[in-house]
Amino acid sequence: MYQPRITSSSFFIGRNEPGLISFGSGQSDLLPPQELFSALPRAGYLKYGLIAGEPALREGVAKLYPGTRAEDFVITNGASEALDLTLRVLCERGGKKVLLTRPHYYSYPHNVLMAGMEPVFTELVNGRIDLADFAEKVQGVDAVIVNTPCNPTGCVEPVATLKAIEALTARLGVWLIFDEVYKQILYDGEHYRPSTPNVITNNSFSKSYSLCGLRVGFLHSYDPELVRQVIEMKTDTTMNTGLLAQQMALAALGTPPEYFAEQLAIWRARRDLCYAGLCDLGLELVKPEGAFYMLPKVNDPGRAVDELYFDHQVVVYNGEWFGALGHIRLCYALDVEKIKEGLERIGLWLKQRK
Amino acid sequence: MYQPRITSSSFFIGRNEPGLISFGSGQSDLLPPQELFSALPRAGYLKYGLIAGEPALREGVAKLYPGTRAEDFVITNGASEALDLTLRVLCERGGKKVLLTRPHYYSYPHNVLMAGMEPVFTELVNGRIDLADFAEKVQGVDAVIVNTPCNPTGCVEPVATLKAIEALTARLGVWLIFDEVYKQILYDGEHYRPSTPNVITNNSFSKSYSLCGLRVGFLHSYDPELVRQVIEMKTDTTMNTGLLAQQMALAALGTPPEYFAEQLAIWRARRDLCYAGLCDLGLELVKPEGAFYMLPKVNDPGRAVDELYFDHQVVVYNGEWFGALGHIRLCYALDVEKIKEGLERIGLWLKQRK
Repeated sequence: MYQPRITSSSFFIGRNEPGLISFGSGQSDLLPPQELFSALPRAGYLKYGLIAGEPALREGVAKLYPGTRAEDFVITNGASEALDLTLRVLCERGGKKVLLTRPHYYSYPHNVLMAGMEPVFTELVNGRIDLADFAEKVQGVDAVIVNTPCNPTGCVEPVATLKAIEALTARLGVWLIFDEVYKQILYDGEHYRPSTPNVITNNSFSKSYSLCGLRVGFLHSYDPELVRQVIEMKTDTTMNTGLLAQQMALAALGTPPEYFAEQLAIWRARRDLCYAGLCDLGLELVKPEGAFYMLPKVNDPGRAVDELYFDHQVVVYNGEWFGALGHIRLCYALDVEKIKEGLERIGLWLKQRK
Repeated sequence: MYQPRITSSSFFIGRNEPGLISFGSGQSDLLPPQELFSALPRAGYLKYGLIAGEPALREGVAKLYPGTRAEDFVITNGASEALDLTLRVLCERGGKKVLLTRPHYYSYPHNVLMAGMEPVFTELVNGRIDLADFAEKVQGVDAVIVNTPCNPTGCVEPVATLKAIEALTARLGVWLIFDEVYKQILYDGEHYRPSTPNVITNNSFSKSYSLCGLRVGFLHSYDPELVRQVIEMKTDTTMNTGLLAQQMALAALGTPPEYFAEQLAIWRARRDLCYAGLCDLGLELVKPEGAFYMLPKVNDPGRAVDELYFDHQVVVYNGEWFGALGHIRLCYALDVEKIKEGLERIGLWLKQRK
């Protein structure tokens, strides 16, 4: 059996050899709204801010969520920290098991284990949650993480599924951690956010505004005691989220809707190009409805990652890193010319492989 | 017995009633070097950075530590995150017990417990580590945290003590986590950093440059595997430390020595004023040699915190929150006039109390 030389996405970090086409790291390649930089201070103090986040920013994000209160948000170093703090608090409260989908975002199982809990899995069927299996697996867990639009599948869960999960988890008293960082990158279908008292919402400025490196995300919970516990934990771990980053995030809330419409048109064109190209190459994949990932099936993805990188200077991620055995993940946050060139190289690789 | 109304420092967060004199939050009230703001970008991308931190910043901090390599540093969201990640990694490696001094920085026991380990304590004697007790308590622990200059005592450990601890922990194979965030606020004595292979150094831009709200700190370890594990964990928790903050921190490394000399003169004058004032009021305390804290003895500190706040509009922290029973902590990061006014009010309170 082939032993992959590349065993983790961290292998690719910092690689930008000339001629490399990277379908690797999951981030926008577009410029953030440039006027946000004007929000940065030119002078002044940088004393500690409130651990929960700047009041104006919390008020701003609360307005995006009708029925919520600013004091029930915590501004975090990206949605990743929101999830890490949430899981650690749930473990402190006695949580033992967390239900994840498979495939899932790379970090989820690590986050659950690092928080001192155990992951349990429900297998996605064609990228979608299978409600029957979900209803079985959710029994006896303390929390569930649902991510839609989904990294790495690009799938969007149907509203009916999300409503069923909302009702079921609320009835069972299971926390529903709802990760909607890609909610604004939606091509088809409708985004629905569950909002029963057991829902904890995670979101971020990283994807919608092309601000990954800024590190601003947030969480919301309807349970003030959970919010208090998260703030208390953050006091001992990272304290306030960086104030410069929060100022830029606050400015981002004023971004006009046209910005998102323009970005979405770009993403959609890339999605269409990449999807058609992979289909033409004979690869089998679900058509993504959101986010900027594709997850085609390939034989021996460990070897595929190695060959594509070493022989064709194309970066793709092994689906295994996301719980997707027999798949590779492509992030198509690349300009159209690079996507075309990348598809050609993948085509060449497929030919040579046969 | 008196039941305090104020039971945590978080009670004071966000309070800035007119007329309030706050010896509370531990942060500089001075302006950061104003030219640092010019380092902020006016346009551009904000894509993910390396999880370990920007190479230029790691190279810059490595130069401050002769004998270290840039790749053995990780840039973090303040020294707090550096400690949180370090302890979580040590627990993953099988660590069970961590030796702390008592008094100690507020968060330490929480950090140890949250990481899944157990704190063990050695009592400071007049603010100093008692080597005999230390040598006894260090047996069987996996790590030790030493913080000098110390929050909340303001004491600086003698070089001989630090050398003894360095040798002992190295011999025993106990990790020595060395928190030197106040190393540049030093009035008397000498700062010595242990540098055996078991030493993990934590430092921050928060205190020296008055940049608490920016959130940039770092850790260094001589063990590349530990550094790798910290980076891997940070990939799942907060990812890269905010890029804007790192750019400002990089600029801060160019701050001329006169800046620190000027700041230190201000801190020293305040230290002298506050120490003399508290002594004149008949309070018993160790004279601080670094940082910006004093830890006088008082009867019933819970009542003292309440009375000083509610009756005299003076904020002090209960030493108990730092493991210092029978003490209150004062942070004298206040201009001279406010320190004088605060001392007067404390004098009034002492008179009324008798």
